[in-house]
Amino acid sequence: MNVEVVAIGTELLLGQIVDTNSSWIGQELAAAGLNSHYQTKVGDNPDRIRSVLRQALERSDAVICCGGLGPTQDDITRDMIAEMMGVELEFQADIADRIRAMFETRGREMPEINLRQAMLPVGATTIAEQPGTAPGLRCPVRAADGSERLLYAVPGVPYEMKEMMTGSVIPELRRLSGDESVIKSRVIRTWGASESGLAEILADRIDDLDAAGNPTLAFLASGVEGLKVRITAKAADEAAVVAMLDAELQNLEPLIGHVIFGFDDDNMEAVVIKTLAEANLTLAVAESVTGGYVAGRLCAVPGASKVFRGGVVAYHPEVKFDVLDVPEGPVVTEEAAGAMAEGVRVKLGADIGIATTGVAGPEESEGKKVGTVCVAVARREGVRTTTLTLPGDRERIRQYSAISLLDMLRREIVG
Amino acid sequence: MNVEVVAIGTELLLGQIVDTNSSWIGQELAAAGLNSHYQTKVGDNPDRIRSVLRQALERSDAVICCGGLGPTQDDITRDMIAEMMGVELEFQADIADRIRAMFETRGREMPEINLRQAMLPVGATTIAEQPGTAPGLRCPVRAADGSERLLYAVPGVPYEMKEMMTGSVIPELRRLSGDESVIKSRVIRTWGASESGLAEILADRIDDLDAAGNPTLAFLASGVEGLKVRITAKAADEAAVVAMLDAELQNLEPLIGHVIFGFDDDNMEAVVIKTLAEANLTLAVAESVTGGYVAGRLCAVPGASKVFRGGVVAYHPEVKFDVLDVPEGPVVTEEAAGAMAEGVRVKLGADIGIATTGVAGPEESEGKKVGTVCVAVARREGVRTTTLTLPGDRERIRQYSAISLLDMLRREIVG
Repeated sequence: MNVEVVAIGTELLLGQIVDTNSSWIGQELAAAGLNSHYQTKVGDNPDRIRSVLRQALERSDAVICCGGLGPTQDDITRDMIAEMMGVELEFQADIADRIRAMFETRGREMPEINLRQAMLPVGATTIAEQPGTAPGLRCPVRAADGSERLLYAVPGVPYEMKEMMTGSVIPELRRLSGDESVIKSRVIRTWGASESGLAEILADRIDDLDAAGNPTLAFLASGVEGLKVRITAKAADEAAVVAMLDAELQNLEPLIGHVIFGFDDDNMEAVVIKTLAEANLTLAVAESVTGGYVAGRLCAVPGASKVFRGGVVAYHPEVKFDVLDVPEGPVVTEEAAGAMAEGVRVKLGADIGIATTGVAGPEESEGKKVGTVCVAVARREGVRTTTLTLPGDRERIRQYSAISLLDMLRREIVG
Repeated sequence: MNVEVVAIGTELLLGQIVDTNSSWIGQELAAAGLNSHYQTKVGDNPDRIRSVLRQALERSDAVICCGGLGPTQDDITRDMIAEMMGVELEFQADIADRIRAMFETRGREMPEINLRQAMLPVGATTIAEQPGTAPGLRCPVRAADGSERLLYAVPGVPYEMKEMMTGSVIPELRRLSGDESVIKSRVIRTWGASESGLAEILADRIDDLDAAGNPTLAFLASGVEGLKVRITAKAADEAAVVAMLDAELQNLEPLIGHVIFGFDDDNMEAVVIKTLAEANLTLAVAESVTGGYVAGRLCAVPGASKVFRGGVVAYHPEVKFDVLDVPEGPVVTEEAAGAMAEGVRVKLGADIGIATTGVAGPEESEGKKVGTVCVAVARREGVRTTTLTLPGDRERIRQYSAISLLDMLRREIVG
């Protein structure tokens, strides 16, 4: 089943907003086993929307139209769809009531203009989910060859669009595709291996899987955050697909277990917080080169307060000496990193202290090259330090330092 | 002149990579006064690339084709363009030499497969800039109606694409459009006003400008980072366009000067660091709810070390009491925020201390609702505090807190 995505909005063409919606929809379609061969962006212009929709309806079985469902005069998706269907727009009182009620719960009166969102092409139905004021539309359209195509219209607001896609559109498309099997993916989060390195380790396994066709493996890059390995499997029912995913995970574990830090929606900081909580350990952070970035990531994890005591951003050398009791001297050294980690551990009353100190640029410091970063993990039992040589600009060096340190900490705890 | 963008790559359709290239190109085309009405993503499939390119060449004067110029078998943009031009691919020894030389400067031997990148459609020329191994292509194509269209092919690697677009493609398109005037924009960064609020203040001015047509004003949202107001002007030469932009800035200043914090590429943290440096003041940060995020942003600014001493992430209440000498008691109060700011100022030997303490959720704390955030700025002369009530989830509350505090500090210094 071929499904095509059309994103509507002049702001997308002008690059004022990056069209992440189409990318997300493409990902979901692929995960559901549905083909998506084209994605088009078009502005708020009737002639051009008309020509893009007409072409999409000719060459695809279903079209997902994203954006242009707002209340203003610019929002002409409803009108264009009615034209494609060869019908008029019709006011639907129940939809107007629903929109009015939404405004009322926020203590506001509905502006008259929002009544435009209650105008539906005759023959269209609304998508069950409606988290915002714009109803999503499901519109059967007759193609030139007489066959019926499905056109869905969803709002451009990402969370509204996602709720409708996940709740209604993707499930219906899968049903229509006649494919009643269940497709599921698991994502393995790795850190510390290059793409070519992982590909080499997994080459034989990938060949075997390619030959069988199910499950499949894919590598997804995620910048300094490491590589994701996605396993996708298809089976007759939920239990069978979960069993396949588990079995494949067991196949991969002996090969790449040493670089796996988490699964699916895990990120490094969430894994670190969880690992610390399970070990009943508290943490404090001393940062120079990362300047608060490591602490900021850890605090972003809900529930961080159970294990995270706090940190010291010891940016100026004097702060290292005065607040963290680092011995005076050069500060881009493993000794200084170790002293910072131990200093913050003791000062903030934590079980573990971690630290970064280094040169993010633009200039060298203490004769050390840009990209030289010393990191440390201090526990009651002792201090472990290492020196990293990192590529990239200031921002990248900070990010690499942070994730390197967090992974070092994780390995320290899991042993 | 109508210019169309075609992004080639199956990874774009699958959402493994978000197509930010088209957005950037759209932005640049608009800034250059060139129309761009369609942007299409298509996978690495000959039939579909063929149909997309054919249509683009029919309906637009020029087409910018992005991606598919790599060395592997997947990269078929060169082949498809040769087909559009009705010519063969031809090996160009000088390009091969250039690519080989690039590998040599990195101390590596050129893999044989990279010779594919030296195959050019007969009649195509290379784009002058070539920061990577892929040459960009400039290809005249005859459309069905006999007229000549221009097809440019640029690599999908963003920095390679941008160098070619800025250096060659956009200037040539502008020349071909016959428009020899100069177009320039200035962006005004504002914080603290809503879009509808700004629109109301500027309504009369926008009406006047709309009537005249040049310069133009546009609002660009940038999330919690405030609204951008972009002035775009067109004039016969550089001096005239700069004068127009300056004049319009002077018109706007009395209307919205109170919410302007910077211009063009400025961000809030860079403005704060610059303002502090000019006033010869040093800064320290105490963070609870933002957990290092404010410090992290400040340290991301090159040259931050001149003014930024460091900070204390006082996440656990004990760290507030023990390290920052905050009096024991409730910690989500303006008193606590003030004590944190003053404590970190004194402890880290800075002229100014700033602080955040609040409830980011998911749960309430000290009977205070999620979104309650107290911020403070402490100087030798005294402490200023305020309480914010912020919307959104944990991440949004943290971000809002940070930018609110930075703007408060900025206003404190500029007076």
